[in-house]
Amino acid sequence: MPYPRRIIIDTDPGQDDAVAILLALGSAELEVAGITAVAGNVPLALTEKNARKICELAGRPDIKVFAGAVRPLMRALVTAEEVHGQTGLNGPQLPEPDMPLQDRHAVDFLVETLMREESGSITLCALGSLTNIALALVREPRIAPRIREIVLMGGGFFEGGNVTPAAEFNIHVDPHAADIVFRSGVPIVMMPLDVTHKALTTAQRIDAIRNLGTGVGDAVAAMLEFFERFDEEKYGTDGGPLHDPCVIAYLLRPDLFAGRNCNVTVETASELTMGMTVVDWWGVTNRPANALVMRDIDADGFFELLTQRLGRL
Amino acid sequence: MPYPRRIIIDTDPGQDDAVAILLALGSAELEVAGITAVAGNVPLALTEKNARKICELAGRPDIKVFAGAVRPLMRALVTAEEVHGQTGLNGPQLPEPDMPLQDRHAVDFLVETLMREESGSITLCALGSLTNIALALVREPRIAPRIREIVLMGGGFFEGGNVTPAAEFNIHVDPHAADIVFRSGVPIVMMPLDVTHKALTTAQRIDAIRNLGTGVGDAVAAMLEFFERFDEEKYGTDGGPLHDPCVIAYLLRPDLFAGRNCNVTVETASELTMGMTVVDWWGVTNRPANALVMRDIDADGFFELLTQRLGRL
Amino acid sequence: MPYPRRIIIDTDPGQDDAVAILLALGSAELEVAGITAVAGNVPLALTEKNARKICELAGRPDIKVFAGAVRPLMRALVTAEEVHGQTGLNGPQLPEPDMPLQDRHAVDFLVETLMREESGSITLCALGSLTNIALALVREPRIAPRIREIVLMGGGFFEGGNVTPAAEFNIHVDPHAADIVFRSGVPIVMMPLDVTHKALTTAQRIDAIRNLGTGVGDAVAAMLEFFERFDEEKYGTDGGPLHDPCVIAYLLRPDLFAGRNCNVTVETASELTMGMTVVDWWGVTNRPANALVMRDIDADGFFELLTQRLGRL
Amino acid sequence: MPYPRRIIIDTDPGQDDAVAILLALGSAELEVAGITAVAGNVPLALTEKNARKICELAGRPDIKVFAGAVRPLMRALVTAEEVHGQTGLNGPQLPEPDMPLQDRHAVDFLVETLMREESGSITLCALGSLTNIALALVREPRIAPRIREIVLMGGGFFEGGNVTPAAEFNIHVDPHAADIVFRSGVPIVMMPLDVTHKALTTAQRIDAIRNLGTGVGDAVAAMLEFFERFDEEKYGTDGGPLHDPCVIAYLLRPDLFAGRNCNVTVETASELTMGMTVVDWWGVTNRPANALVMRDIDADGFFELLTQRLGRL
Repeated sequence: MPYPRRIIIDTDPGQDDAVAILLALGSAELEVAGITAVAGNVPLALTEKNARKICELAGRPDIKVFAGAVRPLMRALVTAEEVHGQTGLNGPQLPEPDMPLQDRHAVDFLVETLMREESGSITLCALGSLTNIALALVREPRIAPRIREIVLMGGGFFEGGNVTPAAEFNIHVDPHAADIVFRSGVPIVMMPLDVTHKALTTAQRIDAIRNLGTGVGDAVAAMLEFFERFDEEKYGTDGGPLHDPCVIAYLLRPDLFAGRNCNVTVETASELTMGMTVVDWWGVTNRPANALVMRDIDADGFFELLTQRLGRL
Repeated sequence: MPYPRRIIIDTDPGQDDAVAILLALGSAELEVAGITAVAGNVPLALTEKNARKICELAGRPDIKVFAGAVRPLMRALVTAEEVHGQTGLNGPQLPEPDMPLQDRHAVDFLVETLMREESGSITLCALGSLTNIALALVREPRIAPRIREIVLMGGGFFEGGNVTPAAEFNIHVDPHAADIVFRSGVPIVMMPLDVTHKALTTAQRIDAIRNLGTGVGDAVAAMLEFFERFDEEKYGTDGGPLHDPCVIAYLLRPDLFAGRNCNVTVETASELTMGMTVVDWWGVTNRPANALVMRDIDADGFFELLTQRLGRL
Repeated sequence: MPYPRRIIIDTDPGQDDAVAILLALGSAELEVAGITAVAGNVPLALTEKNARKICELAGRPDIKVFAGAVRPLMRALVTAEEVHGQTGLNGPQLPEPDMPLQDRHAVDFLVETLMREESGSITLCALGSLTNIALALVREPRIAPRIREIVLMGGGFFEGGNVTPAAEFNIHVDPHAADIVFRSGVPIVMMPLDVTHKALTTAQRIDAIRNLGTGVGDAVAAMLEFFERFDEEKYGTDGGPLHDPCVIAYLLRPDLFAGRNCNVTVETASELTMGMTVVDWWGVTNRPANALVMRDIDADGFFELLTQRLGRL
Repeated sequence: MPYPRRIIIDTDPGQDDAVAILLALGSAELEVAGITAVAGNVPLALTEKNARKICELAGRPDIKVFAGAVRPLMRALVTAEEVHGQTGLNGPQLPEPDMPLQDRHAVDFLVETLMREESGSITLCALGSLTNIALALVREPRIAPRIREIVLMGGGFFEGGNVTPAAEFNIHVDPHAADIVFRSGVPIVMMPLDVTHKALTTAQRIDAIRNLGTGVGDAVAAMLEFFERFDEEKYGTDGGPLHDPCVIAYLLRPDLFAGRNCNVTVETASELTMGMTVVDWWGVTNRPANALVMRDIDADGFFELLTQRLGRL
């Protein structure tokens, strides 16, 4: 399939979501057919506004932004202001957006776009909890075979979890939605903590972005410096993991990543392990593969790509 | 609040759903603002068609019928053709409906109607799995305090279950939806198997309906005779339980029923008891009451009411 | 097999356990090969002492009493002093026992007796949590085919639970032990709340026992009057359910009871329904029968038998 | 506390168990007060015999070997002949043992020894499933504060599981026993797959053992070559992980290992993650530390120690 590749970004910005959106908007190989916001890192009223702030930062007020689910399917919403700050985009000073929020519900936009456009032409980039995508799959199961693939940031296996010992934040926020997605039959590429914890925002890498000398470069550098505080303190590393941009980078340069097709099943029965992505990396079960699970990343190549594309905005 | 009381019937007809719809349409105290179909007893393509067949049988092709969820939230759809027959309405010969299915999705109709109409003016009558109502509550949580009450047929406690030893069919089809509904804070009236198994379609009661000498009377008698086969054989009773019309009868004659306010929690964690409605009838937990759970019915009064109202169609 | 039938009583007295022991000791058809105490209604230090008090009350200081498990397998011990009083035998004034506790551990006594005696000659009467019996089955699985049957008081189905909405006390105290027993392949007769709640200690029935005019009759009447307080207040009945003596009565007069062979599976996965005995009374699963589950009792016949046999002590 | 340190080895040999026993018997710092066998890698009849074979190989027929649990508490026994071969000790040709099995049950030996010996003087080395130790803790809870510590091989966290994606074999065989042990309050040192997968039986390391030129060296080399097949093929490594001797090595040279005090909770509620050891390595829960969980090993130092001590036999 020739470029540009058409994507919908489902997201809960979040600094790393923001950088992922910017990476997509800076890349001519991708055409962003819409951005759908979901509650997660911060409540929906913030995530949809943050998505618009970022589009304007990128000079792309034409991008359609839709608001979706305000809550997970089954569980009370848990947010992560301790990581992202009160706005979800703490770090830079970004103006309130002028561009409007679309009237349509994000789930309706997903269903209608997927039913209308050529089957197999749309890729979903999932950067937050999977509530919107699960609701779309429940509302209109016929979209499943029409999705080219879902590339998602979520889960962890040898790296474990972050919000609990077993579960990663995005999946833990709405494990039931994740279960629906992983059972949907849609081709899935999964970017777990195992990858993103190898993509650290070192001082040198942030400097390279700041040295772009652009408004986008300054804003991203400020976002990353705010965002990395939490994990630097927790893990004692130089820089924090840069999660969501890995999803976009995979579409641009799949060769930067290495992984394996295997079965992923989401824990929804036990509170202790709730939201764990049980990845059968070694093939010890008989469960069929349902995801391409990444484990490794060329982190230098990834940050070079990111810096280059941010420089185009 | 003066009559007529405005209701939306969410349903998966099913013979007993059909009789419930007819009971509502035959009762001037109720105004049916719409019927929303859901997959359950048979697949959605049949339940929405059956709803329209019944409206036409009642001479009410003006009623708006909407199609909703084709599948439960988390689990594969399990239907009950062994009870209801291949069409869901086996028994009488009913013509294909002429009246159209509405374009709107049932969930959207629920959300929009509840947000538009006066708060507290709409009662939801839930006769099938609770998927549509749960999806509406997830899509727009602000509808919760605007619903007057949800009167539902589902669950069982001292009677146990029917589809498994612990679970009743409607709840078992989509236990996660039921859990969302029971945690929603909306006032709930629950008509469990404990009530409906005391409302048996004895030969005498069916005769009374047939003796109405009307097309509706004949059709209902034929439906009930088909429908009762399964439970008569299973339980060895004269007649089977007439589940769903209890919901409508409660709105007309609450004095026919007796119950208790107590906590109801839906089991979603264990496959053994999946979909069980755990009713704290004796108040042994500290969980707050979230439903008026009925246990007894004046069955003769109920069938008299039913026969009378069917006679008005 | 000719009388006397040899039994071991596993018990956590408890007033109703005490009456069960007295019923056994008053019945020449039964030979009590030993009594094994377990923690439950009250801690083990009280249950083993209470067992000895009751043997002495019956004039049988020769009965061997063994102490067993002080705690359930997996869960913290929960006792029921609110029902039984601080001693477990509140009501009558019974002297401290002179007869000694046996040195052997109850589990060892069970294993050794069952391995030594003729296979199929010993019946276990289980009146408390099933910890001792489960531990014996784990320690020496070869005892399973040597047990004639286990007649146990526990569980509930159409009656629901008592300690939680879903679970009966004896099973809830140690659901994992119950699961081991119900999966053991040993023939089981189950006396659930469905039976025992039909065996109420009405004033008239207690009077009949007091009118025996014996020390045993006085003590039993005092025990029952204390014991029934809790359930009378809870259920608003004349008298409380007399649980444990049903087990012994079944061995003497099985015709007093009616039930059905069906599958019983114990819930151990979900906290909400923990310890529920899921009884497939209507045969809706494909799980094979593993217990004769009683549902009905001739309550008058039962109390006549009880009064008669207490009169022999 | 001065050497020699007194230990009881609970084990299901298994080649790596065998090497662990030999390491202990070759080390004057340790006094083996007894060996208790449990079903696991192979059935109990083999594990107790294998323990005796190894004692005789070490020239120590005086060591007391006890047979314990033939089955896990709750689950059917699953063995691992695909790893260990039909005997559990495939590889070398070892003669049938002459030394007797002790009459006492392993659980009784554990309880009596711990109650009799000075409190805090006995360390338990657990190399298999934790059934025996859990049964001892249930039988006599007063042993808990008398155990110096339990050093166990089991579980995994960043390494994941081996028998399922989430669970390691020893814990998965009897997760309920593991849960009892981890909740017991006894100080625990845990050697998970994260350590043992860094202790690989490379060709060079096996050669060093064979080059001892002793019967023990030859037997161990043959055992390790058989044992490593399975994991070499699975993981594509030179050598397989040498699990159980890490437990003994820790008692001799704790400086060879590095880890962290944290909370470990065993999953027993969900089949998907059954037997997972949920290790809160990063301290993201509020659960208190209950184990010293090792993550790193000086593998060269470990094999040097092992080779040296095997050379003393």
